[in-house]
Amino acid sequence: MRFHTRKWVKPEDLSANGTLFGGKVLSWIDEEAILYSIIQLENKRVVTKYISEINFMSSALEGDIIEIGIEVVQFGTTSLTLNCEVRNKMNHETIVMVDHIIVVNLDEKGQPKPHGKSKVEYVKDRLKKEQEEKKA
Amino acid sequence: MRFHTRKWVKPEDLSANGTLFGGKVLSWIDEEAILYSIIQLENKRVVTKYISEINFMSSALEGDIIEIGIEVVQFGTTSLTLNCEVRNKMNHETIVMVDHIIVVNLDEKGQPKPHGKSKVEYVKDRLKKEQEEKKA
Amino acid sequence: MRFHTRKWVKPEDLSANGTLFGGKVLSWIDEEAILYSIIQLENKRVVTKYISEINFMSSALEGDIIEIGIEVVQFGTTSLTLNCEVRNKMNHETIVMVDHIIVVNLDEKGQPKPHGKSKVEYVKDRLKKEQEEKKA
Amino acid sequence: MRFHTRKWVKPEDLSANGTLFGGKVLSWIDEEAILYSIIQLENKRVVTKYISEINFMSSALEGDIIEIGIEVVQFGTTSLTLNCEVRNKMNHETIVMVDHIIVVNLDEKGQPKPHGKSKVEYVKDRLKKEQEEKKA
Amino acid sequence: MRFHTRKWVKPEDLSANGTLFGGKVLSWIDEEAILYSIIQLENKRVVTKYISEINFMSSALEGDIIEIGIEVVQFGTTSLTLNCEVRNKMNHETIVMVDHIIVVNLDEKGQPKPHGKSKVEYVKDRLKKEQEEKKA
Amino acid sequence: MRFHTRKWVKPEDLSANGTLFGGKVLSWIDEEAILYSIIQLENKRVVTKYISEINFMSSALEGDIIEIGIEVVQFGTTSLTLNCEVRNKMNHETIVMVDHIIVVNLDEKGQPKPHGKSKVEYVKDRLKKEQEEKKA
Repeated sequence: MRFHTRKWVKPEDLSANGTLFGGKVLSWIDEEAILYSIIQLENKRVVTKYISEINFMSSALEGDIIEIGIEVVQFGTTSLTLNCEVRNKMNHETIVMVDHIIVVNLDEKGQPKPHGKSKVEYVKDRLKKEQEEKKA
Repeated sequence: MRFHTRKWVKPEDLSANGTLFGGKVLSWIDEEAILYSIIQLENKRVVTKYISEINFMSSALEGDIIEIGIEVVQFGTTSLTLNCEVRNKMNHETIVMVDHIIVVNLDEKGQPKPHGKSKVEYVKDRLKKEQEEKKA
Repeated sequence: MRFHTRKWVKPEDLSANGTLFGGKVLSWIDEEAILYSIIQLENKRVVTKYISEINFMSSALEGDIIEIGIEVVQFGTTSLTLNCEVRNKMNHETIVMVDHIIVVNLDEKGQPKPHGKSKVEYVKDRLKKEQEEKKA
Repeated sequence: MRFHTRKWVKPEDLSANGTLFGGKVLSWIDEEAILYSIIQLENKRVVTKYISEINFMSSALEGDIIEIGIEVVQFGTTSLTLNCEVRNKMNHETIVMVDHIIVVNLDEKGQPKPHGKSKVEYVKDRLKKEQEEKKA
Repeated sequence: MRFHTRKWVKPEDLSANGTLFGGKVLSWIDEEAILYSIIQLENKRVVTKYISEINFMSSALEGDIIEIGIEVVQFGTTSLTLNCEVRNKMNHETIVMVDHIIVVNLDEKGQPKPHGKSKVEYVKDRLKKEQEEKKA
Repeated sequence: MRFHTRKWVKPEDLSANGTLFGGKVLSWIDEEAILYSIIQLENKRVVTKYISEINFMSSALEGDIIEIGIEVVQFGTTSLTLNCEVRNKMNHETIVMVDHIIVVNLDEKGQPKPHGKSKVEYVKDRLKKEQEEKKA
């Protein structure tokens, strides 16, 4: 699993209990799943369709650094299934674990559309290929 | 199921797709589950421990009114299991359905604590009882 | 008066005094008046035109649950006059009381438009009626 | 009346109607009244107690610049009464007018406390006086 | 230098250190530079192009009042160069100082466009002139 | 340079021009510099002291994915100097480039304190070492 996005837990992210608000974490997970899918599917119109059960295993405090990891479980025809872990950056303690997040690829009318992708791609490889094709 | 909290979908609640951001909905659900539990358990220290799978069945647009419904599934010893539905207020179309949200009752040290509750109570009954006891 | 929307007072809702920020309460009241009017008038284009004097009777602390109540005072031709109370959910102590909030029904050009309503309606009755008409 | 604070109307400030959200304006007015009172009363513990009727006379659009003006109506023993106007910076069209906002001076326990002020003071005069006293 | 906009440092403006979040200050400076330029250039389409080095000289605490000052350094053909100081309102201690902020005037296509301005103007003078021209 | 944090440009991140608000980008950069420093210096009390000139080279639109890269320029005794680039994830176009951000390591009283670090460390190596030490 690759961890990219990091957050610094600030007062605005806390619940009234003084720990990281669970709703905020869910919102961060959804954004990360969406943006990862946009990158992979090369399409800005994607939506979260399904999230499997969510276990809140530990919390975080003001000033903690957390990081969000995403891994591809499966490329469907019109969908992408992801696995996600949110953890404390400094000690790798898991905060939330989500086994399956299904993101759907949409056309301009908001209908599911085949994305034609079947494996993880890296932007730098795409850009390299583009440049090579330009030269050729 | 009783629907209480209502939201007016404003620009700040939208995703880049122009529809209600899924992460926002998840955050609203978590807050509603927490506040409902605080009311029932008469304890401000409660946390969401588990959320069962989440199905995004439809979305909402800017200016839509949505409402959030909560129902008790079960009173545990230290926990409360809830069922939640988010729907469009005007046509009752379901936006998100969550079967089980488990909220845990905590003591001052953040450890699970028995809450002693076994059925849904209404604040007005509690206040009435308090007043009667004062008179007696 | 019917109380629907509930809020959990979080750090982001506090003033620098550590109590619920008055400006936040005003913003919640305005949103509730607007969304109640949209439901009653079945029109998304409504605006707040006038708010009568506002008394801040008590405040709320981090972690408190508050609820917002709305009642119709009068149906005008192009407007709807509402009465609003914000109170602490747990002890029913009044936080803010507003006697009159006038919301105006607009047409597409933003001009006042008669709404044709004269009494409070419930969405479930409207939906029931719609279904019966479909069957007939 | 002196206009100080200016705001640039951004997407996050809009209602679902695409115009400046009334609740946001109310929140800006409350903040301005509070901060003006903190400056005048030289006390950080002040709260809004009362706001007289509010007329929404016009709205603002995304990208508009608005400015907020405050004027002292009266110095009470423990309170300060202010008058407020929010207007469009570019054409001086009034957006909202509020005749009386009463802010109360509090002690450490949150109880009203005499502030001993009876006229508008300017910070630069205070600082000048401080410096002169230091020299003397 | 003229100081207009004032802010009351609230919990939502704090970093996890409990002092005013530097990123928030930068965001306030950028907004003030933009809105000042819109007023001077009488054009809503302007963007920040360059900010010279930023020194964080002191911080601010919850409940502090800060004010933002802007001064014109130079009118370019398509740009406006500003100087900015953020300071504590009560003791005039400098929080941040920025020597040069260059804002560019754009046309409808987002391209730099000459603004034809060469000196600071006041809105009240513009409005006075407009009225006189109407009368004539 | 290593790019970690990614953002999905949402309506709440836009200026009134409909493009990514510069102030938001500055705020994201400051947060990333701070959290990177907390990770490297293993101290939660750090503050941004200085940011060298900032060039806004291009903007971003709603729905774009951007990523933030940080690189260490130099380890000082009590400070850490960083280099930062914000770019569009999909085409690697630079949005903002900042040559030097100086973050200072503080003690409990908020005074600069030597951090004792002289090279970039990775959390996984630290955790591995900890485990080995436990075994030994």
